[in-house]
Amino acid sequence: MPPTTFRNARLTDLPTIIQLLANDDIARSRTGYAEEVTPAVDAAFKEITADPNNEIIVGEQDGQVIATLQVTYIPGLGRGGIRRALVEEVRVRSDLRGQRIGEALMNEAMERARARGCALVQLTTDKRRHEAQRFYARLGFVASHEGMKRPL
Amino acid sequence: MPPTTFRNARLTDLPTIIQLLANDDIARSRTGYAEEVTPAVDAAFKEITADPNNEIIVGEQDGQVIATLQVTYIPGLGRGGIRRALVEEVRVRSDLRGQRIGEALMNEAMERARARGCALVQLTTDKRRHEAQRFYARLGFVASHEGMKRPL
Repeated sequence: MPPTTFRNARLTDLPTIIQLLANDDIARSRTGYAEEVTPAVDAAFKEITADPNNEIIVGEQDGQVIATLQVTYIPGLGRGGIRRALVEEVRVRSDLRGQRIGEALMNEAMERARARGCALVQLTTDKRRHEAQRFYARLGFVASHEGMKRPL
Repeated sequence: MPPTTFRNARLTDLPTIIQLLANDDIARSRTGYAEEVTPAVDAAFKEITADPNNEIIVGEQDGQVIATLQVTYIPGLGRGGIRRALVEEVRVRSDLRGQRIGEALMNEAMERARARGCALVQLTTDKRRHEAQRFYARLGFVASHEGMKRPL
């Protein structure tokens, strides 16, 4: 297996990132899901990459983007005023799963979060994603909370 | 009951906000929990209020801060590039619960989120907080996700 390297996403990666996100039954079941780079997706990407508290990290093998996640760094008053990292939109290319690429990607995000002084990393994962829950549990995550959502 | 009004928190509210957050068994059980305004809490407050994507909203009755929450507005590539609102640190003063102040506070947060173009609001709540889960369900939240956390 070629080595996986990690870096911040660039605008030219966006079509591949959207393909990675779209190749997922649960994502496809959701209202508004995008299969290609729409103006809304393009605007969101530019906003994320311009915001110092948001990053999209991609994993690359042989110059191909094969994994992605978004991390948001959030200051807060709870737990003594800690900063936390929120992880969203985690995806590894389907034909490359089971090779610990997701683990390396999450470790990259957690190292960045630690370097920014975060004391906690958190995420929500659809209750139907049993494999994802086992994956996060192996990385030390505890399903201590209900993840509740509401459309607006 | 006097009317409750909502506004963004000011630095002078911080000691009261910290008291509201501290008056909670689950919060007290956590590492690093603060009972008073420490330098870390003060720094977090200043960072939150300086960040256009973070707000601390307080509810006020007769000039007294009696409720609080934090909301973070997060752009994302999922669900077609929607913006979401993350709510944290929701608290109503213990002697004033059951009077729909929490509902009004959450509605204020959701109105602000809508005004900023958010299509989704989300939160995590400790699985031991059964009453909180019923409260959020009444407001239309669905516990569709596991909320997973890990210390760093």
